[in-house]
Amino acid sequence: MRVSVIGGSSVPPETAAVAEELGERLANRGHTVVCGGLGGVMAAVCRGAANAGGETIGILPTDSRADANPHVTVPIATGLGHARNALVVLNGDAAIAVDGAHGTLSEIGLALAHGRAVAGLDTHDVAGVEAVGSPSDAVAYVERAARTD
Amino acid sequence: MRVSVIGGSSVPPETAAVAEELGERLANRGHTVVCGGLGGVMAAVCRGAANAGGETIGILPTDSRADANPHVTVPIATGLGHARNALVVLNGDAAIAVDGAHGTLSEIGLALAHGRAVAGLDTHDVAGVEAVGSPSDAVAYVERAARTD
Amino acid sequence: MRVSVIGGSSVPPETAAVAEELGERLANRGHTVVCGGLGGVMAAVCRGAANAGGETIGILPTDSRADANPHVTVPIATGLGHARNALVVLNGDAAIAVDGAHGTLSEIGLALAHGRAVAGLDTHDVAGVEAVGSPSDAVAYVERAARTD
Amino acid sequence: MRVSVIGGSSVPPETAAVAEELGERLANRGHTVVCGGLGGVMAAVCRGAANAGGETIGILPTDSRADANPHVTVPIATGLGHARNALVVLNGDAAIAVDGAHGTLSEIGLALAHGRAVAGLDTHDVAGVEAVGSPSDAVAYVERAARTD
Repeated sequence: MRVSVIGGSSVPPETAAVAEELGERLANRGHTVVCGGLGGVMAAVCRGAANAGGETIGILPTDSRADANPHVTVPIATGLGHARNALVVLNGDAAIAVDGAHGTLSEIGLALAHGRAVAGLDTHDVAGVEAVGSPSDAVAYVERAARTD
Repeated sequence: MRVSVIGGSSVPPETAAVAEELGERLANRGHTVVCGGLGGVMAAVCRGAANAGGETIGILPTDSRADANPHVTVPIATGLGHARNALVVLNGDAAIAVDGAHGTLSEIGLALAHGRAVAGLDTHDVAGVEAVGSPSDAVAYVERAARTD
Repeated sequence: MRVSVIGGSSVPPETAAVAEELGERLANRGHTVVCGGLGGVMAAVCRGAANAGGETIGILPTDSRADANPHVTVPIATGLGHARNALVVLNGDAAIAVDGAHGTLSEIGLALAHGRAVAGLDTHDVAGVEAVGSPSDAVAYVERAARTD
Repeated sequence: MRVSVIGGSSVPPETAAVAEELGERLANRGHTVVCGGLGGVMAAVCRGAANAGGETIGILPTDSRADANPHVTVPIATGLGHARNALVVLNGDAAIAVDGAHGTLSEIGLALAHGRAVAGLDTHDVAGVEAVGSPSDAVAYVERAARTD
């Protein structure tokens, strides 16, 4: 299935390490990573997934594919700015949030509005988000809870 | 100025009364209400503002202006679905959240991501949102904190 | 009703004069002008309409209302780039094209795809566009052919 | 590189055969096909490309990946309606139009507005579109004229 991974665009090394492990686990389970295509959590999760041979879709706010981080295997330019956040969560069967600020909060809201299950790793404390303690717990949760359309 | 008012699309009468008073106060202060154009808080705030002679802009998720509540004076059809949430907050100089569920949470995130000041009346407890106790406090806060672009 | 007026963003004075007369006629007939909010035909038609006391909605590609020409009475920021062209024609009950290049061509296509009647003044020769010879003929055509939703 | 292929959603068998050959040639040359993901020319070009082992990206107007034709290897849901046409052409380095009606006309306009080279096979006669006589000529033209961003 596809899993949208959302999170901060500028994060400390330990958060990036969590995101990278998450990407590796998702790819090893055969899942495609969907993200916003830029830096921070987005780059780390793509690096982990791509290094494990996985597919990574980066849905960019800008109108240029060249803005994607180097670990995105399928960059999608939108030119929509923050409105592209809706597309990031719409293209996953479930979502995992890692850390993150206002943009991530908006994606959590949009994911829940679209009926997606959301697991959270050290992210916003929001009703409807399943707080989990590790990348493996996050993957296990979305595998149980995801819907596929 | 313009104030985006965001909130639940289906709310109890007491919440609708708060939103209606908020709309009336915004209009009486000369402000335009921007909202998502549908029901619940959106309809109530437009009713309050329009009855006080104010302008109300409803930015709809659908492709038909006819979907606007009857108190919207300027309906804008988008056909963008939830992606239109970004436009709702982009078109205000500040935002006020009243109650609300996932869609409102996404709009709070998008408003903060766009650098808008956000006041909250019985809404999500989010860092960056100024919790206020009444419509008049909400209006006073956004008048102090808004940026105009 | 609402009429979307689409056309070049940089036009010679005689084209601007046609657009300005068109705006004045639309306003005098009680119609609202919808356009892309920028310069050229967009600015001229808004100037004509606004000077005649009409409402002019400018749906901008950028995320800042300040980018609207000074004759727009209701600026709508979208941040969607060229994707906002779909919203320009969606918000009119019919469209009138004046001159114009590639962006205008896309709006003609989108207007026809949305089932809007389109009148053309010295614009692209496209099946489905009614070529007319003057602003008054353009207004007469859209008044006959428009659908209201 | 990536080539956006745009065209009618319901076409006669001979047009579908042209589109299928085009997809096969693009894939054999190592190019990715980008399209709107639905039927007609979109399905035929994806069938040709996918059967030749190529990648096919389908950028859908709806919010469900399940609406993609079965030959799309990377479906992208947008929920944007016709506004997604801008994304179809933005994600190619050049475009090839085959037949097509109003939606295709809008995509030609958007492609040219974004500075993309456009080849046309029995499509709208528009200044800026290079009319070609066969799929192989279309591929040759976009290989010469494309920009890569």
